[in-house]
Amino acid sequence: MARDIQIMTEAQLRDVVSLDLTIIDVVEKAFSILATGDVIMPPILSMDLPMVNGEVDIKTAYIPGFDGFAIKVSPGFFDNPSLGIPSLNGLMTLFNAKTGLVEALYLDNGYLTDIRTAAAGAVAARHLAVETVNTVGVMGTGVQARLQMQALALVRPFEEVLVWGRDPDKAAACAKDLHETLGVRAQVASAQDTVRQSQIVVTTTPSREPILKADWLHEGLHITAMGSDQDGKNEIDVAVLEACDLYVADRVSQTENLGELRAAKAAGVWTKGTPPELGAIINKTHSGRQSAKSITVCDLTGTGAQDTAIASYVRANWPNAGTLIQS
Amino acid sequence: MARDIQIMTEAQLRDVVSLDLTIIDVVEKAFSILATGDVIMPPILSMDLPMVNGEVDIKTAYIPGFDGFAIKVSPGFFDNPSLGIPSLNGLMTLFNAKTGLVEALYLDNGYLTDIRTAAAGAVAARHLAVETVNTVGVMGTGVQARLQMQALALVRPFEEVLVWGRDPDKAAACAKDLHETLGVRAQVASAQDTVRQSQIVVTTTPSREPILKADWLHEGLHITAMGSDQDGKNEIDVAVLEACDLYVADRVSQTENLGELRAAKAAGVWTKGTPPELGAIINKTHSGRQSAKSITVCDLTGTGAQDTAIASYVRANWPNAGTLIQS
Repeated sequence: MARDIQIMTEAQLRDVVSLDLTIIDVVEKAFSILATGDVIMPPILSMDLPMVNGEVDIKTAYIPGFDGFAIKVSPGFFDNPSLGIPSLNGLMTLFNAKTGLVEALYLDNGYLTDIRTAAAGAVAARHLAVETVNTVGVMGTGVQARLQMQALALVRPFEEVLVWGRDPDKAAACAKDLHETLGVRAQVASAQDTVRQSQIVVTTTPSREPILKADWLHEGLHITAMGSDQDGKNEIDVAVLEACDLYVADRVSQTENLGELRAAKAAGVWTKGTPPELGAIINKTHSGRQSAKSITVCDLTGTGAQDTAIASYVRANWPNAGTLIQS
Repeated sequence: MARDIQIMTEAQLRDVVSLDLTIIDVVEKAFSILATGDVIMPPILSMDLPMVNGEVDIKTAYIPGFDGFAIKVSPGFFDNPSLGIPSLNGLMTLFNAKTGLVEALYLDNGYLTDIRTAAAGAVAARHLAVETVNTVGVMGTGVQARLQMQALALVRPFEEVLVWGRDPDKAAACAKDLHETLGVRAQVASAQDTVRQSQIVVTTTPSREPILKADWLHEGLHITAMGSDQDGKNEIDVAVLEACDLYVADRVSQTENLGELRAAKAAGVWTKGTPPELGAIINKTHSGRQSAKSITVCDLTGTGAQDTAIASYVRANWPNAGTLIQS
């Protein structure tokens, strides 16, 4: 039985998919269903390849009611920059949810992952941050630092962004980009000032030592920590999880192994039982932020549900884009 | 940096890849390296989808010295035949072993899996069966029943094949096909006669109850059991594993969870410690069959190493076949 399989390259995907409110809503819906318990999301398949300084992660999730499910392969080969190639690449394959047949191959080199990751940051801010925001902060100076601020501006418009990075030149370049892209004041700041002066802070680093200290917390702060996605990474002082009024996981089974919750549990400071997931906040089965003074933290490790959501969104909206291969 | 990604459909793959001695050697090499301990092969990622009577398995293996590594997705959606679609399909993606970049997408709908699975049966027979064979038997009447006999004929030429299946009509059709394809005598037989009269028997069913009984064992018999590949399947009476002179696993960590070894361990009859793997027999680090009278069993669950081997073979030999997509 002849049928067409859709193939889209990174360039073709960049032409049609952008970071906007629609994609934020798509990702929000995925978290909402994820929290109902009907989603089938196996543990991430991780393959470490120390002999080539590489790793490969495979994520998937089957979301009832979606026409397809994605399987995403994310290779990270950290010697690539010396060859002039980005470290991260990979693809998403979308399968028909009723037959398992391949429907589409999105050769995105991680672009769709970047977008759905930034969208998750916006979803977290929309449901956990205070309503009125003047200053936001970002820790880290890479692609996600830029995209997280771009996504945040869509749900919590702000006037100023503070940028902290280990490398002052990269921080300056990031601040310049954010000023030009978002039309807001943007400046480099110390880690401490970035946190103290912001109503929302997003951490976007691969750090293995805490970069955000509990001493800097203040009333009304919301933190989204999206950098830690594997055992050993840790951006947030474990005392922050202890001190905050509300800690929210994208997926508890992931954050306790791969996210900030892992470090807090390992340090023995976690005494709050099973935390709520972002979907429960969205669905209002958890009451979320209690007051404008509360301090909230959202820990994002990245879920297969987001991948299935964004791949399904591309498929539904641009079914004839790219190349169709008769199979 | 523009580069080409190779895409081949099932039809294009069938045009170039066939079940021959070359592919048997390719798969043998994969088992040989797998036994050296340098291969990185994570546990299979399995996703059960009971609401659609489906399942998805993902296998991969990184073999040092190979230019690429494959990630194979095998969906099985068992209501598909009612829609006129095969239950099994899927694809292999080949990644560059040094950079992690996607090199090729083989939309094989399981064809390459069929070939590498049959090739493994031939490797097992080549290293474990007696040299001279007149009659062989196959239990099961599907695609693998045919391919296993075709592969076997390349390494242990035989004059007669006996076919047993639950459905006599399907058994007759399989025997007819084998007669026409291989030019040997082929007839339907009882399960008992199939085993008693053959020097080699290959079991190829999805059975959950043993179909091959220990009472039927005889001197010189080699059995390859390739049907069981998940918890709950069981083709071989556990007493066979107890009674045989040598049991060999494709991968112990898989056969003890997914293969015949699982049932034998569950029944408490397994007392032989850690069995050898097929690669150890190939490499002669295990002495293998001891005499022409020995009874041997090889348990094949299917390894990611075989997938990496066959995908790499296609890539090396037909780098310009199919469609090249500039990415």
